[in-house]
Amino acid sequence: MSSLLITDVALVDGKEPTHIYVEDGSVQELGRKVDADHTIDGRGCAALPGLVNAHTHAAMVLLRGYGDDMVLQDWLAKRIWPAEANLTGDDIYWGTRLACLEMVRTGTTAFADMYFFGPRMADAAHDAGLRAVISEGFIDLGDEERREANIMATEATTRHIRQMGDPRVVPSVGPHAIYTVSPAGWEWVKDYSSDEDLLVHTHLAETEREVIDCHSEHGTSPPGLLERFGVLERPMLAAHCVHLSDEDVALMGQRGVAAVHNPVSNMKLAVAGVMPWSDLAGAGAHPVLGTDGAASNNSLDMFETMKSAALLQKLGGDPTSLPAREVLEAATHGGAQALGLPGGRIAQGEAADIILVNMEIIGMIPAHDLASNLVYAGAGHAVTATICDGNVLMEGGVIPDETEVLGRGLQVAMDLVSRG
Amino acid sequence: MSSLLITDVALVDGKEPTHIYVEDGSVQELGRKVDADHTIDGRGCAALPGLVNAHTHAAMVLLRGYGDDMVLQDWLAKRIWPAEANLTGDDIYWGTRLACLEMVRTGTTAFADMYFFGPRMADAAHDAGLRAVISEGFIDLGDEERREANIMATEATTRHIRQMGDPRVVPSVGPHAIYTVSPAGWEWVKDYSSDEDLLVHTHLAETEREVIDCHSEHGTSPPGLLERFGVLERPMLAAHCVHLSDEDVALMGQRGVAAVHNPVSNMKLAVAGVMPWSDLAGAGAHPVLGTDGAASNNSLDMFETMKSAALLQKLGGDPTSLPAREVLEAATHGGAQALGLPGGRIAQGEAADIILVNMEIIGMIPAHDLASNLVYAGAGHAVTATICDGNVLMEGGVIPDETEVLGRGLQVAMDLVSRG
Repeated sequence: MSSLLITDVALVDGKEPTHIYVEDGSVQELGRKVDADHTIDGRGCAALPGLVNAHTHAAMVLLRGYGDDMVLQDWLAKRIWPAEANLTGDDIYWGTRLACLEMVRTGTTAFADMYFFGPRMADAAHDAGLRAVISEGFIDLGDEERREANIMATEATTRHIRQMGDPRVVPSVGPHAIYTVSPAGWEWVKDYSSDEDLLVHTHLAETEREVIDCHSEHGTSPPGLLERFGVLERPMLAAHCVHLSDEDVALMGQRGVAAVHNPVSNMKLAVAGVMPWSDLAGAGAHPVLGTDGAASNNSLDMFETMKSAALLQKLGGDPTSLPAREVLEAATHGGAQALGLPGGRIAQGEAADIILVNMEIIGMIPAHDLASNLVYAGAGHAVTATICDGNVLMEGGVIPDETEVLGRGLQVAMDLVSRG
Repeated sequence: MSSLLITDVALVDGKEPTHIYVEDGSVQELGRKVDADHTIDGRGCAALPGLVNAHTHAAMVLLRGYGDDMVLQDWLAKRIWPAEANLTGDDIYWGTRLACLEMVRTGTTAFADMYFFGPRMADAAHDAGLRAVISEGFIDLGDEERREANIMATEATTRHIRQMGDPRVVPSVGPHAIYTVSPAGWEWVKDYSSDEDLLVHTHLAETEREVIDCHSEHGTSPPGLLERFGVLERPMLAAHCVHLSDEDVALMGQRGVAAVHNPVSNMKLAVAGVMPWSDLAGAGAHPVLGTDGAASNNSLDMFETMKSAALLQKLGGDPTSLPAREVLEAATHGGAQALGLPGGRIAQGEAADIILVNMEIIGMIPAHDLASNLVYAGAGHAVTATICDGNVLMEGGVIPDETEVLGRGLQVAMDLVSRG
């Protein structure tokens, strides 16, 4: 692997621009101009750890804008499910590549993905050069035959990823939600994730309906039910976490759950609540950030998600909630920790997942506070370079295979809905 | 004035790409390729009417990121007011130019501005080539001497703008709010706006505190107080309108007030409420969109504001609230109507305020629905051309005087805070 030097780049809370020397996928030195195989001029730019999108359904980018402003049940029944019924492995591969292209362009270097055709999701993440935690979506709806099929698909995905041997791409288990996975399914998830040492990635307490139904069917809340199944003892990535009681928050804190705030999707799908970020953090849980799928966002730009999260947490009445530096930390180091991946810090010995953001463009001037500008005035389009594991995936805004991926992505998207 | 042809461009709800021929500042023909002095290739782009930012404080872009995540009173007392006390006319001119640069870059062709040194605000809007409604901020705090000074400043701004003779830049009256302007001040505002035929631009019902104080001091709500002063009979642009009773909504509907939703600023400043968009529209008022100043946003990108508005209106529980086409209409034709300006439609005989948006970039593919993509996946950086009154202000993403304005803007911003 070749060496890389980024010169004269600003760091958040750094006093003066500095130099970053990268070798073997890691930051080897900060501050000294070391001769390297390749040099990127960082003047006018800020360097950030690569952003971590802790909850998405990458290939749903194929359905971006395919049914907005609709009632949830109509949207699912009339648009999403009919289209999803026709998905092929090739759709998933090119859809995930298209999503990865958008992530590289907007500064995301790692993502947690839950969807179908896990091996093709993994192939796409590998070919794009990103870090990814891949979950085959597990939905048994109480049906034993479906459960067996889900188990086989999850096992096949894990095997495929382990055979791939790309340390950047790791398997996880993806039980969809408490209302789509049976107790027997959760039992298997718990055992399998434990035997195979995998993260559990699920949706939790997204709507009030889920909470009401859970209480009436199981006599407890969604987090209470997962605790009953013993699955909260596993490392867990729980998306949404909007409708939580104080007891739920305390439980999730005690279990150290990573709670993924998806502010844009939550507003767009009208979940009628806001994830209690500071309560969760105070209790010991780990709030992080995700975009959700592009069908319910409709962007994968984590800069937009950072700003939306900071804004939505403030709306209730406290303008000091979720300040810029805390958002940046959650979107970088917090996300990497939650996904069990390296990255998230620009420091000696840390993984070289680094993005450069042009701070001298219209909309970013003046820069009285670098962190504020990144969160409140920044946007994915300001990213000029994206480096993952020491590999330069984008430089000067150029991604080598952009044209091919855009073309193939568009083709499969249009073909998919024509079949729907 | 030279003629202009835009070729092969998509229109929202248009079936096939078409051609737009512009002469004398107006759209003369749609659909036919007419020979013109200048041609812009619109392939891959959508044409939208220029966006209208119905409430901002343009020169506050100088204070972008200067004190975020703070309690309102601290922010005002420790950051904004000390800096504003040092503002000079040159600061205002270059600050407004910097803001106009950002507006041109992100597709805004008209704005309603309220700040200080009105003649310099007007000069900057004129030099930038944008349409603007200029209000000299009127704040008398019950003090007669201040009131006289405000009256003189407002009159001077009106005179200056009328002498300028630029039909794109028009004066208005800018009483800051019910809690900063005395009854005598409002009396003068009503008479002056009537005598001079001017729009009244104010802040209204932004915080619960304002409503509580108004009831205890005046025995009525903020809109009720303006009705008492007779000023609701004037054409009015009322920013924020967050904390309204049903009676307030009915009154504002009856008076046809233009209510400016500022979703980003409202969340960031934690106003603890959401403008009741559909109630206001249903009652006969005119909900439109604004960014507020960049100190409380921190962007002037109306694409972000369109998406934030659509999201925030949905959050409460109805995902069909404020759909994409309604947002686009409010941000274009609705805004132009509210400001009393031409523009807002791409049709024969209408003013040629037109922007081109690149629909073939990463993040906009696929495009199952053009309106959805513009609102939910669009962003100011996707704008490639901005045309106001038939004049091309940006083409191919290039604004001729960008470097000078960025440089001067940065200089006055840093100088301003060093004096603070």
